[in-house]
Amino acid sequence: MSNNTYGRLLRLTTFGESHGPALGGVIDGFPAGIDIDMDFILSEMARRRPGSTSLGTKRSESDEPEILSGILKGVSTGAPIGFIIRNTSQRSSDYDDIAHSFRPGHADYTYQMKYGIRDPRGGGRSSGRETSCRVFGGALAKLILRNEGIRIDAGVIAVGGTKASGYSWTPPFPPPLYAPECPEREAMENEIRRAAADGDSVGGLIECRATGMIPGLGEPAAGKLDADLAGAIMSIGAVKGIEFGSGFEGTAHRGSENNDMMRMEGGRPVFLSNNAGGILGGISNGNDIIMRIAVKPTPSISTRQLTITDTMEDTEITVRGRHDPCIAIRAVPVAEAMAALVIADHLLISRAYER
Amino acid sequence: MSNNTYGRLLRLTTFGESHGPALGGVIDGFPAGIDIDMDFILSEMARRRPGSTSLGTKRSESDEPEILSGILKGVSTGAPIGFIIRNTSQRSSDYDDIAHSFRPGHADYTYQMKYGIRDPRGGGRSSGRETSCRVFGGALAKLILRNEGIRIDAGVIAVGGTKASGYSWTPPFPPPLYAPECPEREAMENEIRRAAADGDSVGGLIECRATGMIPGLGEPAAGKLDADLAGAIMSIGAVKGIEFGSGFEGTAHRGSENNDMMRMEGGRPVFLSNNAGGILGGISNGNDIIMRIAVKPTPSISTRQLTITDTMEDTEITVRGRHDPCIAIRAVPVAEAMAALVIADHLLISRAYER
Amino acid sequence: MSNNTYGRLLRLTTFGESHGPALGGVIDGFPAGIDIDMDFILSEMARRRPGSTSLGTKRSESDEPEILSGILKGVSTGAPIGFIIRNTSQRSSDYDDIAHSFRPGHADYTYQMKYGIRDPRGGGRSSGRETSCRVFGGALAKLILRNEGIRIDAGVIAVGGTKASGYSWTPPFPPPLYAPECPEREAMENEIRRAAADGDSVGGLIECRATGMIPGLGEPAAGKLDADLAGAIMSIGAVKGIEFGSGFEGTAHRGSENNDMMRMEGGRPVFLSNNAGGILGGISNGNDIIMRIAVKPTPSISTRQLTITDTMEDTEITVRGRHDPCIAIRAVPVAEAMAALVIADHLLISRAYER
Amino acid sequence: MSNNTYGRLLRLTTFGESHGPALGGVIDGFPAGIDIDMDFILSEMARRRPGSTSLGTKRSESDEPEILSGILKGVSTGAPIGFIIRNTSQRSSDYDDIAHSFRPGHADYTYQMKYGIRDPRGGGRSSGRETSCRVFGGALAKLILRNEGIRIDAGVIAVGGTKASGYSWTPPFPPPLYAPECPEREAMENEIRRAAADGDSVGGLIECRATGMIPGLGEPAAGKLDADLAGAIMSIGAVKGIEFGSGFEGTAHRGSENNDMMRMEGGRPVFLSNNAGGILGGISNGNDIIMRIAVKPTPSISTRQLTITDTMEDTEITVRGRHDPCIAIRAVPVAEAMAALVIADHLLISRAYER
Repeated sequence: MSNNTYGRLLRLTTFGESHGPALGGVIDGFPAGIDIDMDFILSEMARRRPGSTSLGTKRSESDEPEILSGILKGVSTGAPIGFIIRNTSQRSSDYDDIAHSFRPGHADYTYQMKYGIRDPRGGGRSSGRETSCRVFGGALAKLILRNEGIRIDAGVIAVGGTKASGYSWTPPFPPPLYAPECPEREAMENEIRRAAADGDSVGGLIECRATGMIPGLGEPAAGKLDADLAGAIMSIGAVKGIEFGSGFEGTAHRGSENNDMMRMEGGRPVFLSNNAGGILGGISNGNDIIMRIAVKPTPSISTRQLTITDTMEDTEITVRGRHDPCIAIRAVPVAEAMAALVIADHLLISRAYER
Repeated sequence: MSNNTYGRLLRLTTFGESHGPALGGVIDGFPAGIDIDMDFILSEMARRRPGSTSLGTKRSESDEPEILSGILKGVSTGAPIGFIIRNTSQRSSDYDDIAHSFRPGHADYTYQMKYGIRDPRGGGRSSGRETSCRVFGGALAKLILRNEGIRIDAGVIAVGGTKASGYSWTPPFPPPLYAPECPEREAMENEIRRAAADGDSVGGLIECRATGMIPGLGEPAAGKLDADLAGAIMSIGAVKGIEFGSGFEGTAHRGSENNDMMRMEGGRPVFLSNNAGGILGGISNGNDIIMRIAVKPTPSISTRQLTITDTMEDTEITVRGRHDPCIAIRAVPVAEAMAALVIADHLLISRAYER
Repeated sequence: MSNNTYGRLLRLTTFGESHGPALGGVIDGFPAGIDIDMDFILSEMARRRPGSTSLGTKRSESDEPEILSGILKGVSTGAPIGFIIRNTSQRSSDYDDIAHSFRPGHADYTYQMKYGIRDPRGGGRSSGRETSCRVFGGALAKLILRNEGIRIDAGVIAVGGTKASGYSWTPPFPPPLYAPECPEREAMENEIRRAAADGDSVGGLIECRATGMIPGLGEPAAGKLDADLAGAIMSIGAVKGIEFGSGFEGTAHRGSENNDMMRMEGGRPVFLSNNAGGILGGISNGNDIIMRIAVKPTPSISTRQLTITDTMEDTEITVRGRHDPCIAIRAVPVAEAMAALVIADHLLISRAYER
Repeated sequence: MSNNTYGRLLRLTTFGESHGPALGGVIDGFPAGIDIDMDFILSEMARRRPGSTSLGTKRSESDEPEILSGILKGVSTGAPIGFIIRNTSQRSSDYDDIAHSFRPGHADYTYQMKYGIRDPRGGGRSSGRETSCRVFGGALAKLILRNEGIRIDAGVIAVGGTKASGYSWTPPFPPPLYAPECPEREAMENEIRRAAADGDSVGGLIECRATGMIPGLGEPAAGKLDADLAGAIMSIGAVKGIEFGSGFEGTAHRGSENNDMMRMEGGRPVFLSNNAGGILGGISNGNDIIMRIAVKPTPSISTRQLTITDTMEDTEITVRGRHDPCIAIRAVPVAEAMAALVIADHLLISRAYER
């Protein structure tokens, strides 16, 4: 992956800052002849959009993508699909008083160090708003995948210290938390409400699964499916960790417990467990791909924090504006999008070798 | 990253199977004029080589790299550096009885599904032996980094359920466990000995740090430093998870706890904590980069396991051979190598924009 | 280069069809801190725009780029520069009668074969209109280069059978032909007028030079500067050949004539000739880079031609619409743009290795 | 294409200098299950090898590739194919007296400028010997193509000022000239003998064709088939120009002459001419792909030439050693190899989109 381009055959390039005229991007390498289900695309974007959850920011953005190329009469033509999403709800004034101070937990300092210049309004390029383009691209990738019976879903499975237990995987998961049915759902929502009331924020865990998978996606050493998924998911702002299958917990186990044994059932090979999370040696084994994703607490909080200015002087900062107290909720559709882009890309690569 | 090539400017391409004549690769985009410290390179490879730890396999391989190009009189010329590592200790007979059964936890099944053909001897391309090439490439990358004062170290910080506590970061860490000094070191070693005695294996955690970092490495949305590190580390066999800074645990915290506040100290900006693990918005902030890596228990175990054959019939399997009971130990130098390759690549990319 | 993306560090991705709502693209990897001279960019685009030459199409398009990101207060920020160019002068009706017939010399047939679907209006993705995005990207690349004293110019040096002789290189070259001062200029213009009067078209040659070059740009075997230039220039529609330095004619010569000998002059190394066209072993030698580019006659002509329909039946076709009788003229700024993108990309790559 | 890697899905990475221990490379993305016809591969390499033609160098190299991975029992496994070619006939002493002078027409000067260091023996990385790896990779690519009925052939069609006329395309073409049957064949051979007798060299033209093509290979704007072919062919040392179909000569024609009209014949679409050289809009149209390639006279000549030393002083040089008086002959199999690699790569990419 290069600076702002994801993927090898199916490639998403994005651009745009939170407070410029528009964000947008290009989906290249998209197959011709696919029906572009705009209702589906818009519903995907609606899940990510600010204001989509009662547990999130009160800032409401419309996030209407304008498709500029690559689609003719509702069908993809094989040409690159260009799109833009106009910014309509920028309130730059919210950022005036922090234009010269680095917000803790944000990329303000690192952008300043790297580029010697930065757009202080809403984080500029490092704004979460960039993910609107990923969700658009991911929705298109899902259109490829659903023709193969593959679907990608994600949900919140922990907020703060509270973790979902005993849930089964029956997506889609309902707002406002987008969590699977579990005894802890109300407690998780309350964690968020308490943090918001305190002018603070709280972290969370997302689980993301690809179901209906086929075996054989992924490449040897460097192009492993889990490597590409990890890279793509980790590129989402605020994500600080990812694990597959038994993941971190599996490291406490013996091999005899962690290995997924196999049996023939009904004439088909089945795994008796899925500690691998659907990937062995970097290649999908046909089981569900299971990832868990660590999302840090939203760095924008309204309590006072120590920081420095861009003239290198001590100061204190209070981040105003309308922020999500638990950004994990809004990362749910973004995680799905990145997973969909990676898996669809590998599906195309895999087809190149079918004969 | 494509199939067997890592990196953008500094690129490592590898080839080779555990039981073919040789493994090897090409390091491309390596700067001219760098002294190639062969003693250092060999010492790096010695840490990874089978037989390097008394807690590991008794299989001993020499892992002597033969450099074929790109270096003249001990100095890099800017031309690609080709190298091979001959296989000398293959005992293919160990694999005869499992040639037609899929070893649980290995890539046997997925390679068969993907390619319709596989080299059953020692895992073929998916063998851990491929990592010898990564360590060679990583050693070269470290030569670039140490000219900048950047060093990469890793150590085992958990085995099975036993975690190191209260350790300080004083690398290099000693064999046989390559763990930092901590009260739990002997208990961790005993976990491994017990697993070995049981013909079983055990998982572990690795911590990897880049120290002496400079701010500004990493690119926007898709080329984030942590995204590239996650992809590279996850491409190591047996790695099932990665986290940066406060990682998974940080998701249980409030933003006010997790944000790293800043102060000027001695005329330089400092962070009062490092929950970010040295990366903000995908760009290094100058702090140590801190990663923790989940390594699953070695899948090769000598207890009986259920599996199927490549003619799709139920069978049982006992994996003979000389395997590491805790593969995390041997992944330590590999994790360092992948981290070094990624960071050196980003260092070069960053220099392209210096003026 | 992948489908619609040029370059390695400096990358231009384009999208858009001639008759969709807009074309556009993303310039990624553009250095921060560069003054964006909009007057210059617009003047570059004006040279390419339909209607820019009295010898060309009467179709007039405004080609106003709208910049959507990556620039703050007239200075680049390091973030990707997204832009769109609205289509305003589409007359789709011109294409109604040829919607189902393949225009000879166009990509109609190959797009239909490849994608099973095509946008018949104006060539869709294969339209020359796509080059507006390249000229925009090339103008930005020129801003990088001119800070180094490198400039890229091109001019028409042959039309039909008439070739410019005895010209010196004093760009910029004036409209309508954009040819260097030479005795044949009027004859070349008349070739075009005669072709236009006949409802026909005529081919031409372009010479493109990079002056003020520095030595050392270009990479070994696969990333040679001339290889990348050739690939980039050949990707321009209607270009059917490219040569460097003495090129095709040099193949009739002896080595003793064709080699460029060297001498020290004024303390600096100079080449006594430039048959190499400024590149040796794929790396710039500091001399002017000299390319000549073969541009075929515009395939859109109003005389009757034999062809087939998309239902595979014989038919005849007359291509109406407002076409350039000599497309080489309008390819002049496009050739400059592609050369600028490649050279600026290699300049950045080269800087990555400066120390 | 990056420094030493060609291709997107089918990727060849090469390394090695003319006078190091070995050259070699990695073919990655090669399909599994293909019979590796070693006799064919060796016959391809034999055509390129020094000493293969009585019109060439008397230096004889064995060029035996040693395959190290990716092939099991004569069949490709999908794993990367690593190979080396040992250098056995280096006579470094030939280069002793020119170790500090830049040979005109060679890359000595540019490598010195770029890297500040160079291997003076035989050109180091810029040696034509690197092409042995390309021919090996190209032979493998041809194995993919011949399963589709596509073959790639090339021949010498001009030497010095003498051009083949009235030839038909009936490959393979015989040594020593590897030219098609034509009245000028003896005159062309005599041009070479005369140049050799004079201690000089002479340039030549190669024609390369892909026959049995299928329509639909190639991508839009940036990934055009002719653009990729041009880039790959131009990356061959000594190549200074390339044209497709009517190429440079076609620029003297009218559109009505140059367009290839179409007719249905026997139920299949046919083009009534092939001025396009088999590619329209960057996508193959099913016709033969026809390229002509300009190869400069061998720069190594034994007459005295002016040059400078690496301490920047005037000197004169006589290049001793055993050189080909017309390097175009030996570039014939290399041109085929590069064309095969590009077309096989596009074939795989195209398959990714078949459904």
